[in-house]
Amino acid sequence: MDENETLNQMLSEVLRRVKPSEDERRKVSEIVRKVINKALEKSKELHVEAEVEVEGSIAKDTWLSGDRDIDIFIKLPIKLGIEGLRTIGLEIAKAAAGENWVESYAEHPYVEAKIDGYRVDIVPCLKVDRPDVRLTAVDRTPFHTKYVLGKLDERAKDEVRLLKRFMKGIDVYGAELKVGGFSGYLVELLIIRYGSFLNVVKEASSWRERHVIDIEGYYSDPNQVLTLFKEPLVVIDPVDRRRNVAAALTAEKYCEFISACRAFLRKPSMKFFFPDGIRPLAFNEVISDLKRREASLLVLYSRCPKLPIEVLWGQLNRSLLGIRKLLENEGFNVLSCKAMSDESSYVALVYELDKMELNRTFIHKGPPVHMPEDEERFLLKYRDGKDVATGPWIEGRRWVIMLFRKQTNVKQILLEKLFKASLGKYFADEFKRSGRIYVNEEVREVYDKHEDFKMSLTRFLRKKPLWMS
Amino acid sequence: MDENETLNQMLSEVLRRVKPSEDERRKVSEIVRKVINKALEKSKELHVEAEVEVEGSIAKDTWLSGDRDIDIFIKLPIKLGIEGLRTIGLEIAKAAAGENWVESYAEHPYVEAKIDGYRVDIVPCLKVDRPDVRLTAVDRTPFHTKYVLGKLDERAKDEVRLLKRFMKGIDVYGAELKVGGFSGYLVELLIIRYGSFLNVVKEASSWRERHVIDIEGYYSDPNQVLTLFKEPLVVIDPVDRRRNVAAALTAEKYCEFISACRAFLRKPSMKFFFPDGIRPLAFNEVISDLKRREASLLVLYSRCPKLPIEVLWGQLNRSLLGIRKLLENEGFNVLSCKAMSDESSYVALVYELDKMELNRTFIHKGPPVHMPEDEERFLLKYRDGKDVATGPWIEGRRWVIMLFRKQTNVKQILLEKLFKASLGKYFADEFKRSGRIYVNEEVREVYDKHEDFKMSLTRFLRKKPLWMS
Repeated sequence: MDENETLNQMLSEVLRRVKPSEDERRKVSEIVRKVINKALEKSKELHVEAEVEVEGSIAKDTWLSGDRDIDIFIKLPIKLGIEGLRTIGLEIAKAAAGENWVESYAEHPYVEAKIDGYRVDIVPCLKVDRPDVRLTAVDRTPFHTKYVLGKLDERAKDEVRLLKRFMKGIDVYGAELKVGGFSGYLVELLIIRYGSFLNVVKEASSWRERHVIDIEGYYSDPNQVLTLFKEPLVVIDPVDRRRNVAAALTAEKYCEFISACRAFLRKPSMKFFFPDGIRPLAFNEVISDLKRREASLLVLYSRCPKLPIEVLWGQLNRSLLGIRKLLENEGFNVLSCKAMSDESSYVALVYELDKMELNRTFIHKGPPVHMPEDEERFLLKYRDGKDVATGPWIEGRRWVIMLFRKQTNVKQILLEKLFKASLGKYFADEFKRSGRIYVNEEVREVYDKHEDFKMSLTRFLRKKPLWMS
Repeated sequence: MDENETLNQMLSEVLRRVKPSEDERRKVSEIVRKVINKALEKSKELHVEAEVEVEGSIAKDTWLSGDRDIDIFIKLPIKLGIEGLRTIGLEIAKAAAGENWVESYAEHPYVEAKIDGYRVDIVPCLKVDRPDVRLTAVDRTPFHTKYVLGKLDERAKDEVRLLKRFMKGIDVYGAELKVGGFSGYLVELLIIRYGSFLNVVKEASSWRERHVIDIEGYYSDPNQVLTLFKEPLVVIDPVDRRRNVAAALTAEKYCEFISACRAFLRKPSMKFFFPDGIRPLAFNEVISDLKRREASLLVLYSRCPKLPIEVLWGQLNRSLLGIRKLLENEGFNVLSCKAMSDESSYVALVYELDKMELNRTFIHKGPPVHMPEDEERFLLKYRDGKDVATGPWIEGRRWVIMLFRKQTNVKQILLEKLFKASLGKYFADEFKRSGRIYVNEEVREVYDKHEDFKMSLTRFLRKKPLWMS
């Protein structure tokens, strides 16, 4: 049996597992129908001319078996304005949601309902004429649905499913901040552009530092596109030329996708689509792993502040980097770091350091000699010799001095200086209330409290991409 | 008594100590006369039309009491050429030198004689018409002497002596590579430009990152001068506009001079001219000093290679930085470093480090993902897991991996990699023959062998400028 045949068999097998069954489709259709009917009823009752539609991967028939997300959009007359979404829109959404729902919000409020084990987002939006004159981010969504439906035939929808499953398997799927990966719409556009899963994988294998995809040919010169957008991958939105569909894709996930594509072509394997599950480490294994590589673990842990999910991850990522910078400025060597959260019970900023204790002395750089006022202040400050190990002396064009650190332990230093770091305000507020700092063995105290934390930390310590054996 | 009067009294006292006595002058004149006569005799014998003159600070009467250096120049007809300097020039010089001399060389050979406790450099040069058409560096010297003599009156010569003594006191005097400070000619030009010691000190106090002095006004725009020359201080040679008299002055010595001038003006004191002698530390004190500041000492020590002095220091400084870079690339934190040598028996490259032992793990940066061949080589290289602590994974746009170091001890690392550093060739050759590496306590083995090493190491550990209390 030749290679291509093996590969085709593998893709058929993947498809068999990801394509929704008739039963599954019926169940979803039923939920959709019910929600739409309730929404229309309520609209009539309120005398609002609403159109109610299913959007997203359900509408486009590009969803995967087992997906539990349904998006229903309530399109309201534009004259109701943003304010109308918040009042009438939300009232209709709540009526459509049934028994079990919470009000949630991204750019503007929507309703998140639980119906028969599915998560149904019921989203009010405004019925705009053109996607580029939208008032809110979600107003564009119906245009995406329409565009994709016009471009994808049945075969192509399966190719979308293969690519989605591949991206899920290698952990680059999802445009939310927590992942920073590929959105469903982006996957569909890739298939529209390159025709098949395998073609996308081949093309991506040779993407350079940056890559431009402009399906509708809005721009004549890809170099112009590269100056207009700053992200690694730029995919011009066919329904709005000013927008990069891949704006949320981080350099890491862009590169991980490219590398995984290459690895898959070298040696195709089911594990790219369905990686082996990872067993979370027992805490003793965490400690012995750290010991083996003579590294140390620092965890800043607190309760999860109540925030919209994207705001939460913005806060965590910003604080993660702010503290990383603080640690490095103090003289620590940060081997790697990661923000973790289950988005409900806890957040944790995790750092792997080569040591927890700094040397007592360090070189402090003073002012350049050609700034006389600064020089005088510097020389006066250290004249009494307090904290001075030796010096000052002149190196190059500036004063330097060897000082003693007041604190050498990472925990002591953080307790003193944490809130001088560049932190997200909401993170800082929550950390003041419920935050704790744990080092190595001390992490045991919270390790077993959250399955998500165990899993995230296990992945963090492993570090290798899942598809790499 | 007001401040100015105190200051004037102080300067008078300095002058009293540095101005040569009549006895001293007579003695020097006697030596000069003898050497000139012998040189002229030999010239006559060889039928060469030589002019023999004293040059340098003796000729200009700007020398300090106690100076033991005399420069005698044998000016030969230009038709003899460079080759003539090496043959006839050297023959005359040897004849003039008396009993006790060695042949030495900088750009070309000269004779270094010991006469009555004085070091007399007898230098053959060519009699050129203009200093800018010189054939060798020393051909310009007679023009310097003539220029300075035409500009300095008796009072100004004393001002030169004050400034020289000040610069010696604060350790910025001497244009040789070992010091990288101010030459005698440069000091004279500063007095010619600003009129007095005190004026120079006042002016220098407000010199910025770079400063231009163009006494003869050869250039209309100082900014033009700054682009033509790269050194911090640019003093256009009045006898050759293409030359910066301060070319040998390092940024450090430039800045040290400026800072010392400011400090002197804030609080004038004799110790700027005559600093308290430093007692060399006993070796136990070296060790306890290192312990106190929790730092470590690394010494690369060898015999002194036989080289012209300026070549020697060029080799040492280059090797010092090459090894510094190697140490930093390996992960060490170099707090400070210095090349030391008595220019005859030993050389030493000395490093103060915060530790001698590195952590076992480190982050190794691999290739960027968009270079597929490099990526493949990288992934293959670490596939067997040897030396791998964890990873690889993608960070930003490139692969990184956490590796184990083969060696963690500075001495082991240097033994393995020293000759991969960017070293001066002559230093490397000598180090291969007689070099040893000493760490902390081990330095004891050589500490007491050389007074110069003890003194240099004491100064190195102290680090504060001498004038700073």
